[in-house]
Amino acid sequence: VDSVRVTPLHQIVRRTITRHGLCPPDSRVLVALSGGPDSVALALVLRDLMARDGVTIAGLAHFNHRLRASAGADEAFCRSFAARLDLPVFVDGADVGALAAAQGHSVEVVARRLRYGFLERARAQAGATHIAVGHTQDDQAETFLLKLARGAGGTGLGGVYPRRGRLVRPLLDVSRRQIEAFLRRRGQSWCEDETNRHLDNPRNRIRHVVIPELDRAYGGPSRPAIARAAALVREDAEWLDELAASRYLRVARPLAGGVALDVAALSEEPLPIRRRLARCALRSVAGGREIGRAHVEAVLDAAAGVCGPTDVPGGRMELRDGMLVLLGMAGTRDGVSTVRTDRVSRPRRGSRR
Amino acid sequence: VDSVRVTPLHQIVRRTITRHGLCPPDSRVLVALSGGPDSVALALVLRDLMARDGVTIAGLAHFNHRLRASAGADEAFCRSFAARLDLPVFVDGADVGALAAAQGHSVEVVARRLRYGFLERARAQAGATHIAVGHTQDDQAETFLLKLARGAGGTGLGGVYPRRGRLVRPLLDVSRRQIEAFLRRRGQSWCEDETNRHLDNPRNRIRHVVIPELDRAYGGPSRPAIARAAALVREDAEWLDELAASRYLRVARPLAGGVALDVAALSEEPLPIRRRLARCALRSVAGGREIGRAHVEAVLDAAAGVCGPTDVPGGRMELRDGMLVLLGMAGTRDGVSTVRTDRVSRPRRGSRR
Repeated sequence: VDSVRVTPLHQIVRRTITRHGLCPPDSRVLVALSGGPDSVALALVLRDLMARDGVTIAGLAHFNHRLRASAGADEAFCRSFAARLDLPVFVDGADVGALAAAQGHSVEVVARRLRYGFLERARAQAGATHIAVGHTQDDQAETFLLKLARGAGGTGLGGVYPRRGRLVRPLLDVSRRQIEAFLRRRGQSWCEDETNRHLDNPRNRIRHVVIPELDRAYGGPSRPAIARAAALVREDAEWLDELAASRYLRVARPLAGGVALDVAALSEEPLPIRRRLARCALRSVAGGREIGRAHVEAVLDAAAGVCGPTDVPGGRMELRDGMLVLLGMAGTRDGVSTVRTDRVSRPRRGSRR
Repeated sequence: VDSVRVTPLHQIVRRTITRHGLCPPDSRVLVALSGGPDSVALALVLRDLMARDGVTIAGLAHFNHRLRASAGADEAFCRSFAARLDLPVFVDGADVGALAAAQGHSVEVVARRLRYGFLERARAQAGATHIAVGHTQDDQAETFLLKLARGAGGTGLGGVYPRRGRLVRPLLDVSRRQIEAFLRRRGQSWCEDETNRHLDNPRNRIRHVVIPELDRAYGGPSRPAIARAAALVREDAEWLDELAASRYLRVARPLAGGVALDVAALSEEPLPIRRRLARCALRSVAGGREIGRAHVEAVLDAAAGVCGPTDVPGGRMELRDGMLVLLGMAGTRDGVSTVRTDRVSRPRRGSRR
C-alpha cells in the first residue's frame, strides 16, 4: 500500500465531493476507465480517499470502442492498471465504427450510447451505487463554449453536471494540467488518444485553438473562469427550471390533445419564468420534436396578441377568449396536419385552397 | 425626403424597440455618432422609423477623442452627415490620450467617462429623453466572451443591455455584417477606425481571431448564437438579482457597522438566491472594495459552519448564535484592521502576536 500524501488535487476533489454530495455514506463507486490521464487520475485519487474518507471503489470499467489502432493496447493497460491497484475490472467492447455506419448515426452518438449502457450493466454487476467519470474543468469549459456556439441558453449552456442520477464527476474542479502534473509526480503512465489532435473535430478545435486564443486575448488562462461561469449559469438556470415547473399548473390547463395557457396569469410571471412556461407548453404537444428559441418567442408574442393562429412543432396554437390554446395535431408529421381543428378561421400558413 | 423602403434591418430594429420599450410615446432621441458604420446606420434607421413610428430624433452628438490621425476627418464627416440629414449636431472633444496619461488611467476608461459625460450634457441641451448608441449583436457577443474570460457569472456576463436608464441600444439584434450591407445598398459611406485591427487589444483579438475560430469549430456563424445566449443569461440573472434584493430583509438584520445574516433563513433559500444574498451582505461592509466569487463562497461556507472567523473585503465575519455577523472595520485599509472587534477570540489570519 502506498503511503499517500494528500495533494492540493486531493483537496479539490474532496471539496467537490462534499459540496455536491457525490459520495453519500455507504456509497460504492464504479470508476469508468478509458486509460487516458483523467480517468487514471480519478481512479488513483478515489482510491487514496477511500482509505481516509470511507469511499469504496466497487471496481473499474473499461469499454473498448475499437475505433483506434491503439484500442487493444489501451484495454491491456486498463487490465494491468486494475490488477496493480488490486481492483476488479469490468471490460466490454464493440466495433463502434461498423455499428454507427450500419445504423446511420454518428460515431460519437453510438459510442456514447454503448458506453453508458455498458457502464450501467457493470455498475449493477459490481453492486455499485454510483458511476464516477473523469470529466474535468477543461471539459466543462470546452462544453460551455461548444454549446454557446450552438445557440443554447440557460440550462442548455450549463453543460457538465457534477451529479446526474447515478453519474458523478469528482474531477470537475480540477484542470487537465493539474492532472498530468499529478500523474507525472506519481510516476504513473497513461494512454494518449492520438485523435485528440484532429482539428476537424469541433471539441478539439475549441481545446487546441479557440481557448488558447482566448487566453491570449485575456492575457492568462481562461478555462477556470469559463468553467466557473458555466457552473454559475447552470445553478441559476436549474433553479429557474424547477421554479417554472412548480408554477406550470397555475397558468396551464390540460385539454384533450393539448394545453391552454391563461394569458393573464402568464403575463404576471417574470420573463425568465414566462419563457420556461412557454417551453413546457410547447413540449406538451411537440411529441419529441425539437423546440427552438423562435418557437418560445412565438408563444410569448401570441400571448401578447401579436400574431394570429400559428403552427408550432407538432401542432398549432391560437388565442381564444384570453387563453392561448396549443393543440397537438393527431396524425401530424413535421407540422403538416391531416386533421381539421375547430374554430380556426384563417387559412393555415402554407396551406393552398 | 427619401422614399423609405422598410428593409429586414428596419424590422429587426423596430422589434427590438418594441420588445424592450426603448422609445416610449413622446420620446426624443439623441443619437451618439462616431462616424463608424454602426452609428451611421443607427441614425439612418431611426430617421426612417421617425417618419412612420413617431420616433423623434433630437439631434446627433459626436465626441472627438483626438486619438487617431483621422479624428479631424471623422468630425468633419459627422458634421456634413448631420447637415445632409437636416439634423442638429452637437460636437465636443478632448485630448483623451494626454488626459489619460496625466490622470494615470487607461485611455479606454477616460474616453468612456468623457464621452458619456458629453452625451449627457448634449442630451439635456437637445431636450432629449434618451441617448441611442450603436452597439450591435457583434458587440454583445464580443462583450460576453470578454467577460467570460474574466470570470464573471450571472448578471456580470450579460454585458450589453438594450436599455440602461436613458441609454438605449436599438441595434442590439443586428449584426455588423447586416449593417455594412445596409449602408452599401444605400450608397452611404462611413469612417473606418484603423485601430480596430490591432490584435493587442483584447476585444479586437476576440473579434478577429477567437470568433472566426469558433465559427470554424461550429461550422457556421457563432455570433448570433452567442448574443442570444448572452441575452438569455442576462434575463435570468437580472430577475434573480431582483428576487434576491426583495428577499434580503428576510435574512439580513442591519447592525451598527455591519449586518447579521440569519443562518437558518439563509439556508432555506435556493443556491442562486443564497449566493446573491451573500454578495449583498458583503457589499454592505465592503465600502466599495471588490467582491470576488471566493468571498461569496466563504460566506456560504461560514454559514454552513465550515470555517471560523474570517476576513472579508473591508471587514470581518463570524458565526454567533445562529447569526453570521459581518462587521465593517472602521479605519480598515485593504483588510488590515486598526481596531479590535469584540468576542473574536482566535488570532486573526496574518496577525503576529
